[in-house]
Amino acid sequence: MIRAGVVGASGLAGGELIRLIIQHPDLELTFLGGSSSIGKRPAQLHPGLRIDHGLTVRPVTDDIADHVDVIFLATPAPVSAELAALLADRVPAVIDLSGAFRIRTPELHDRWYPKVRRRADLADRFVYGVPELVGDQFADAALISLPGCYATAITLGLAPLALGLGLELRTVLVDGKSGSSGGGLKLRTADLHPFRSGAIAPYAPTGHRHAAEVGDFLKRSRPGAIGSLTMSAYGVSHVRGLLASSYVFTDRAVDERELLRAYLRFYKGHRFVRVRRHTETLIPVPDPQAVLGSNFCDVTVLHDDEGDRIVVLAALDNLVKGAAGQAVQAMNLRFGLPEETGLTTQPVMPA
Amino acid sequence: MIRAGVVGASGLAGGELIRLIIQHPDLELTFLGGSSSIGKRPAQLHPGLRIDHGLTVRPVTDDIADHVDVIFLATPAPVSAELAALLADRVPAVIDLSGAFRIRTPELHDRWYPKVRRRADLADRFVYGVPELVGDQFADAALISLPGCYATAITLGLAPLALGLGLELRTVLVDGKSGSSGGGLKLRTADLHPFRSGAIAPYAPTGHRHAAEVGDFLKRSRPGAIGSLTMSAYGVSHVRGLLASSYVFTDRAVDERELLRAYLRFYKGHRFVRVRRHTETLIPVPDPQAVLGSNFCDVTVLHDDEGDRIVVLAALDNLVKGAAGQAVQAMNLRFGLPEETGLTTQPVMPA
Amino acid sequence: MIRAGVVGASGLAGGELIRLIIQHPDLELTFLGGSSSIGKRPAQLHPGLRIDHGLTVRPVTDDIADHVDVIFLATPAPVSAELAALLADRVPAVIDLSGAFRIRTPELHDRWYPKVRRRADLADRFVYGVPELVGDQFADAALISLPGCYATAITLGLAPLALGLGLELRTVLVDGKSGSSGGGLKLRTADLHPFRSGAIAPYAPTGHRHAAEVGDFLKRSRPGAIGSLTMSAYGVSHVRGLLASSYVFTDRAVDERELLRAYLRFYKGHRFVRVRRHTETLIPVPDPQAVLGSNFCDVTVLHDDEGDRIVVLAALDNLVKGAAGQAVQAMNLRFGLPEETGLTTQPVMPA
Amino acid sequence: MIRAGVVGASGLAGGELIRLIIQHPDLELTFLGGSSSIGKRPAQLHPGLRIDHGLTVRPVTDDIADHVDVIFLATPAPVSAELAALLADRVPAVIDLSGAFRIRTPELHDRWYPKVRRRADLADRFVYGVPELVGDQFADAALISLPGCYATAITLGLAPLALGLGLELRTVLVDGKSGSSGGGLKLRTADLHPFRSGAIAPYAPTGHRHAAEVGDFLKRSRPGAIGSLTMSAYGVSHVRGLLASSYVFTDRAVDERELLRAYLRFYKGHRFVRVRRHTETLIPVPDPQAVLGSNFCDVTVLHDDEGDRIVVLAALDNLVKGAAGQAVQAMNLRFGLPEETGLTTQPVMPA
Repeated sequence: MIRAGVVGASGLAGGELIRLIIQHPDLELTFLGGSSSIGKRPAQLHPGLRIDHGLTVRPVTDDIADHVDVIFLATPAPVSAELAALLADRVPAVIDLSGAFRIRTPELHDRWYPKVRRRADLADRFVYGVPELVGDQFADAALISLPGCYATAITLGLAPLALGLGLELRTVLVDGKSGSSGGGLKLRTADLHPFRSGAIAPYAPTGHRHAAEVGDFLKRSRPGAIGSLTMSAYGVSHVRGLLASSYVFTDRAVDERELLRAYLRFYKGHRFVRVRRHTETLIPVPDPQAVLGSNFCDVTVLHDDEGDRIVVLAALDNLVKGAAGQAVQAMNLRFGLPEETGLTTQPVMPA
Repeated sequence: MIRAGVVGASGLAGGELIRLIIQHPDLELTFLGGSSSIGKRPAQLHPGLRIDHGLTVRPVTDDIADHVDVIFLATPAPVSAELAALLADRVPAVIDLSGAFRIRTPELHDRWYPKVRRRADLADRFVYGVPELVGDQFADAALISLPGCYATAITLGLAPLALGLGLELRTVLVDGKSGSSGGGLKLRTADLHPFRSGAIAPYAPTGHRHAAEVGDFLKRSRPGAIGSLTMSAYGVSHVRGLLASSYVFTDRAVDERELLRAYLRFYKGHRFVRVRRHTETLIPVPDPQAVLGSNFCDVTVLHDDEGDRIVVLAALDNLVKGAAGQAVQAMNLRFGLPEETGLTTQPVMPA
Repeated sequence: MIRAGVVGASGLAGGELIRLIIQHPDLELTFLGGSSSIGKRPAQLHPGLRIDHGLTVRPVTDDIADHVDVIFLATPAPVSAELAALLADRVPAVIDLSGAFRIRTPELHDRWYPKVRRRADLADRFVYGVPELVGDQFADAALISLPGCYATAITLGLAPLALGLGLELRTVLVDGKSGSSGGGLKLRTADLHPFRSGAIAPYAPTGHRHAAEVGDFLKRSRPGAIGSLTMSAYGVSHVRGLLASSYVFTDRAVDERELLRAYLRFYKGHRFVRVRRHTETLIPVPDPQAVLGSNFCDVTVLHDDEGDRIVVLAALDNLVKGAAGQAVQAMNLRFGLPEETGLTTQPVMPA
Repeated sequence: MIRAGVVGASGLAGGELIRLIIQHPDLELTFLGGSSSIGKRPAQLHPGLRIDHGLTVRPVTDDIADHVDVIFLATPAPVSAELAALLADRVPAVIDLSGAFRIRTPELHDRWYPKVRRRADLADRFVYGVPELVGDQFADAALISLPGCYATAITLGLAPLALGLGLELRTVLVDGKSGSSGGGLKLRTADLHPFRSGAIAPYAPTGHRHAAEVGDFLKRSRPGAIGSLTMSAYGVSHVRGLLASSYVFTDRAVDERELLRAYLRFYKGHRFVRVRRHTETLIPVPDPQAVLGSNFCDVTVLHDDEGDRIVVLAALDNLVKGAAGQAVQAMNLRFGLPEETGLTTQPVMPA
């Protein structure tokens, strides 16, 4: 058994990691770290998880390596940055779910994460990326940084165009729609149920950091792959799941049929990405409710003859494929397990 | 008292018209027309409206002019087309809420409404448009065609740019998010609560007719005002209200301050359009929940320095400003009443 | 014009009072009081209310009588108790929406409101009750205390049995289901959208204060009217509206037909109480969505031959008939206006 | 591998069975039966289940025994009655999820299921019950009938009182609250999203069949265990999960501490029933959202000193523990597998 620890155990991603770890056949939950909930048991923090492993939340201390083989950081970026420095050479595998190490280009990092001081030595040792695209680099990686929930969906949606077909994505506009779990559990009036239910909240009409993250990744992956990428993000009236719509103008025309073939080819063998036709089932897809609770990312590509644009839609469960599930997927690759180990749960729908 | 009739009394827009007419100080509800609910009282069709006016739903017949001074058509486009031909010279004022007479350019009409045969003589007599923009043409108009719910929001959002500032809107991408009441009451599995609740349903990722409608109007209003306008529309997990986001690339740069001033100037004196700063209240606006049940359209304009685009957000209640309320507003102008008569209800929020 | 002030202007009931006051033909909003939001305009606190009356929230001070003819207290019970003492002989009409003066029997008050010290002189001057039942006492009343949202629904549901038919209600079990707006805007993790959406939260399975309030009122109204009254209350996954189900065992059998007649008779002439048959419209009623935004209380009575019990269902909008609307209704009666003045809004449904 | 078939494959319970079967380590899905969706693949009917087993929906024919070792009937009661007669001696294990064979007392059956003609020979061969209570009878049973979703929750809630403590439950009032998935996928206007969202729909204020089912079971289990049991059922505004509240008056007083101990004792070793304290986590429990997607039933017991009643709350996912999950649990017991095989999914929360 691989001994696993979770820091940030009281948050939503932390709770989801606990859920997935206790369902995983090769993992044993041996450590819960945090700062605000010291002494609490999982069931007190996560109402669904009435488990008794005898674990309570503890501060992260030097001797953590005695307890874990892998540690997941579900902590805010500044905390992850500090913890990574502490844990880097003590724990065999550190998997960070925060934004601390996602943007690799130093100036970009400083611009979008001004409060997370970049330590070049540490940052350069992190492997970053979506498992489907950079998974082979995870084998034996000591430090792994995973993309944000939106960044995962957008990257999986654009990669077949930019990296598969080799198109130049001159202008990409992303419109993101997510549920309230994407914002975590901050105590703000705007996030109370009366104001958040029924909302279409334009919380980031400009300036979402995940757009910068995707642009940075695609540019580093293939120079010239992408021109301008902007994003507007909205909170809508459900809890779990997001849909990222990318409206793409490219350097050359590709018809819908060819697009679909390219996507199927690109994700062949990657079971967590489901390339779907828009009308293949009784509701229009992709729709995040059709991946709820699972590690799937559903992707659909369409060509809009009006305006000659490509429409790419990608849906995922922000707490699973957008966070905890993808982290377990990366951990599987890191330790040489089959990628889908412990992640075979089918979507819970309708819910 | 002005005697008012509603055809399509069993639908959601029909019900909303009934609600607004019985609240209106100068209107008397004297006729309910329909085909599928003959003999029913309003309370049987609309659970909230337990009123007793002795009216039941009847077929529309020749002698309707004996009963009404104004008739609202809340019927599907093909039905409206037929009824308009019947009623045109019989009833003093016909106000159509359907798509039958919205697109004025004949080829465009035929392309987007292939099932609604265009009768040029009739079509040319209709006055079409958002009251805030063409309201002066409504005085004494016999035939009025009102924009679709999305078309209203998009047009109100873009008009200050295209018609106020005189910009060329080279490329406009509209992303629309609406609740389930936008789709009416069709009996489809995908619209049952288990599948529609929690959804982000990409029901029209390309090819939404309201985009064509807006383009047609703006081009006719000012040649050269607009280049390409495409739209993607999504159903999200609430019932009432929509948000239309327009991402706009123009021929010259305008900074955010100037944009805001232009919007305030453009809508000065138009009380139903509220130009709002994105952060002026405790939730991000515009958000359709902040206009629920009212005839307001909230509009916000932002400049995104990334990608040099303008972001225009417009929110309205699709059954009020997007349908029944706007129809009453048009009726007020038609009969020389103050524009806001019977429409002073403040938003019901939170709901 | 009657000059009206609202204390507790930042809360949900406060916002609803503002909404109803500015819609009221005979009221002028002249004062906004509070403690936590000093200096704020209504639009900053209530996103839907983008009005400009030049008013901002101020502390309540001695000279308030210069500004208002009536003051509504939408404050927590302990604050209302203090303010009532301050305002009692200064302002012509004080209308309290809190629990401070609801329970009249001293021992019961002390048991259920241990933190609200009872001042007998003041308490005894308050007129308490649902307008439909005690409205004639409101004329010229200087101090009015209004029932809680649940108490209003339960009382309106039981009164025709206890006070109309003169039955002895030996055992009453109330099961209450309400939306999240019933709990106000407290910053608690359990009230954040991710945990409150989709919930059926048994927040008060025993010991709800409104049960004691109803029992106290019915006993004082007719000794022997009621035996045991217990309540369990649940938060369900919507925002506005509640349904109170009373399961009643009485001293003698009354069949369903007679029950219905008794209810219709009891509420004859009371337009805000709609006695409805369970199957009279296309959804089962009463359902709070069918009264949303309005001052109606829908009531249905059924007889269950199994177990020989009476089932009374009462639905209302907790912010309108359960709070602000009922307060305006009481104010109308206090100032000799027609009861429904300013309260003619029909339900906004579906929403 | 045990070969499993599902009849009623297009319904919600059918979809959930497919989900659980393909996650089950010892089951192989080999047959999909139905009548309205002949020829469809699972993914066309269940948007989340994009699996390819090559199976499509087929009519049930005589040769079905060639394909399956166990068949699950997720069909309406009249269909189940017919199919059971056909399959009884052909397939080793028939597990019926419908109401066809639940009520064992003939007169009661005929009263509550007048459209399902009772065949005594067949009916008497069925083993009926909640696995936690009658699971030992499932071993080698050829015909198994499982309780309804509400009946499961109510029975699990009352059994420790009636069968553990041996109390006489003189009067039990059940108030049930469930999401829209409980009603299946019937095409009715009242079930469309606009009318079902935000509802508190009193769909069965009296006369729910599950109440009769529970009464029948408890009386047969221990004569004198129960007096009157009535139920009122409501649809609330979420999709999955139900809460059954039982308000119980007994023949002798038992304090809350003793009650809790009795419940813990009664369910010791039964991992799917979680006896929970009302305040043990950050939301009040039991709440169905805390069991979503899992086979757990959460149970809480309280004593209300007012009125001397016992309050029992039981929450479960109506599609899992209330239907498909419990069916798999029964199948495990039938085939000698550990009860929890394939059912180890932890609740997906928040969702």
